[in-house]
Amino acid sequence: MEVSNLRINRQRLLDRIAELAQIGAIDGGGVCRLALTDEDKAGRDLVVSWMRELGLHVSIDQGGNVIGVRPDGEGRVDTPAILTGSHIDTVGTGGRYDGALGVLAGLEIMACLNDADVETPCPMAVGFFTNEEGVRFQPDMMGSMVHQGHLPLDGMLSSRDRDGVTFHAELNRIGYAGDVATNSVHARAFVELHVEQGPILEQEEIGIGAVEGVQGLSWREYTFHGVSNHAGTTPMSLRNDAGYAAGELAVFARKLALDMGGDQVATAGTVILTPNLVNVIAKEAIITIDVRNTDNDLLIQAENQLDAAARGIADQEGLTLTIKSLARYDPTPFDPEVVDLVVSCAETFGQSVRRMPSGAGHDAQAFAPNCPTGMVFVPSVGGISHNVQEFTEDAHIEAGANILLHTLLGLAEKSVEQQ
Amino acid sequence: MEVSNLRINRQRLLDRIAELAQIGAIDGGGVCRLALTDEDKAGRDLVVSWMRELGLHVSIDQGGNVIGVRPDGEGRVDTPAILTGSHIDTVGTGGRYDGALGVLAGLEIMACLNDADVETPCPMAVGFFTNEEGVRFQPDMMGSMVHQGHLPLDGMLSSRDRDGVTFHAELNRIGYAGDVATNSVHARAFVELHVEQGPILEQEEIGIGAVEGVQGLSWREYTFHGVSNHAGTTPMSLRNDAGYAAGELAVFARKLALDMGGDQVATAGTVILTPNLVNVIAKEAIITIDVRNTDNDLLIQAENQLDAAARGIADQEGLTLTIKSLARYDPTPFDPEVVDLVVSCAETFGQSVRRMPSGAGHDAQAFAPNCPTGMVFVPSVGGISHNVQEFTEDAHIEAGANILLHTLLGLAEKSVEQQ
Repeated sequence: MEVSNLRINRQRLLDRIAELAQIGAIDGGGVCRLALTDEDKAGRDLVVSWMRELGLHVSIDQGGNVIGVRPDGEGRVDTPAILTGSHIDTVGTGGRYDGALGVLAGLEIMACLNDADVETPCPMAVGFFTNEEGVRFQPDMMGSMVHQGHLPLDGMLSSRDRDGVTFHAELNRIGYAGDVATNSVHARAFVELHVEQGPILEQEEIGIGAVEGVQGLSWREYTFHGVSNHAGTTPMSLRNDAGYAAGELAVFARKLALDMGGDQVATAGTVILTPNLVNVIAKEAIITIDVRNTDNDLLIQAENQLDAAARGIADQEGLTLTIKSLARYDPTPFDPEVVDLVVSCAETFGQSVRRMPSGAGHDAQAFAPNCPTGMVFVPSVGGISHNVQEFTEDAHIEAGANILLHTLLGLAEKSVEQQ
Repeated sequence: MEVSNLRINRQRLLDRIAELAQIGAIDGGGVCRLALTDEDKAGRDLVVSWMRELGLHVSIDQGGNVIGVRPDGEGRVDTPAILTGSHIDTVGTGGRYDGALGVLAGLEIMACLNDADVETPCPMAVGFFTNEEGVRFQPDMMGSMVHQGHLPLDGMLSSRDRDGVTFHAELNRIGYAGDVATNSVHARAFVELHVEQGPILEQEEIGIGAVEGVQGLSWREYTFHGVSNHAGTTPMSLRNDAGYAAGELAVFARKLALDMGGDQVATAGTVILTPNLVNVIAKEAIITIDVRNTDNDLLIQAENQLDAAARGIADQEGLTLTIKSLARYDPTPFDPEVVDLVVSCAETFGQSVRRMPSGAGHDAQAFAPNCPTGMVFVPSVGGISHNVQEFTEDAHIEAGANILLHTLLGLAEKSVEQQ
């Protein structure tokens, strides 16, 4: 069989997605499978059993990351592999596609290669990385970041959940504290299939997103300190109203994003007033602004403009201001050749395709600095994710998995040419 | 002694203020004497003992309102009296002047009349009204509103605090469920001395406020219903951001008050976002706006403009909107002749005086529809009230009490002329 005619088995993939979704299933069709819980263990056990059925060489590293390697044509499993994968942990009210799709599509690709007895010039591998969601243990993308050397293993193992239980204790408890070093499986390239988790593809009626990189992110917390006073007895001219200042900043953030245009987004997601009473002028307001851009210079510009606006509002209202950075990630560009490959594979399959940034973080981010990396997005109905209503059409799943398959095969071919 | 030369005894008044402030005293010099608690009982017992020492005829009505009547020159206590007074309950972290000043200044005036053997043409009386603050039982100004027939006695007695305890049970428990009907003491006129609880007098370096009325009040709650979405993956053009809408409305409310000018105030005191997470667009925002004006037509105009603005914001952002009125009081004008009398008394005492509205509600509001009514304001340092730091200078207290004394005497004189 011509490799170019290879197609994944849609029903087999959908069946695996449905079966994994039963572990930690919650009302409404969603999933709760927080990292290192009993549900995570059961999910891991199922996926590992599938890896073994497919004849993959399974390695579990000290951070609980699991990678199944399909040997190359010469039976090698130790040389750098073309790697795909994602995560199987979920948020508290997660959907069945976020993370799981990328892992199970990878398994389906291995099955498809097996069915056709395809011999690849380098090993092909699929993995799932521990605690991508960062709900139970922080930060997020923990396993992949440790795997790629951006975070120390010790920090991951000693982190604690809200009840004070350590990551290490829980990893041991569920039997996934492996004995191989993290990154014992070397990635020659990494490509991840994921649901978009946003509305762009659906709105534009496009089937495939060729992800050019992950937006840089900055979470800034602005605390305005004013004076609590009676809402009836205090003239407008004698107020130091922290609540009003928060409103002004929320409006500014919106205007800033629209003025900057492009990929720039800005969100005032959190507002907390003190004392938060109808007839009392707020003495304190805490507001967070989440700004993101694919261009780091523009992101810095957005941060600076927000800070300046907050200072101006505080000065005008007679408030003091505290600014705190809660999180900051530089944008992560993906490899242009991988992006091009995704685009051309999509076109081969007759799929409409769009180059786009990812607004959310993904395991692929961890690989991008170290090897050629890319992502394939498929549409999320209504842009909904981290929600039991998360849904992606079967046809889009099939197309995404086929495009991932041929992107991985293309990368395998290319890696040989380069040797 | 010429009645016009009568002066209150400053030290005796200050001593009583200090003594009452010891009951329910809290750190920082403040007072916690919530309505119908043991502290309220102890405060009542002390004030009633002072009333009896002064030879006043004490009546306790079925709502726990207490009035001490000083007989007129012919020994009558049953004919309509010139009444002063306020309340002795406080908020949880109250000051020592709010309410207490008006009651104790009234007592001091009775003492002063006694000392000089003044015979008045009608009875003079001082009272304190139950649960003005409305902290433990709602609504506020309960006792005076029942006393003046604006609220039913039954409703007051059956109201419950957070623990489900009825007003009636607590009134009985502290021994202040009197046997006389509410309003058995008829007011010929009512004047209340109170701290301003706002910054205007201090800022303008004015000693006395001649209160022209209480601002009308409207508390409106706006709930914007949008769509929760990922702050990174949702383009600005595809948002239905309830949090942004709340910010816009807070900014509009400020602009509205400034554009309307005059007494108009507007406050966004409460904002609650759901889910209130840094990286999630809020699906719901509840914001309250407190608007007040002395002119009911202007107040209605402010309400209408706020509602229209909220609808416009909701339409533009693709949100649905629920508007709820949480409270609505018409403005309460005071008697122009009483206001003139306060002004002329202040001038007689060489005090700078300013006609002004009250931004807060007071017991005097209950009397205004039924008899000539007014209020005297003295400056609040820093405009601070409902706070342990509440403070009014001794000299201002003395001036306010003297002006109250002569306003009451003027009203007594006038009441005879009119007969």
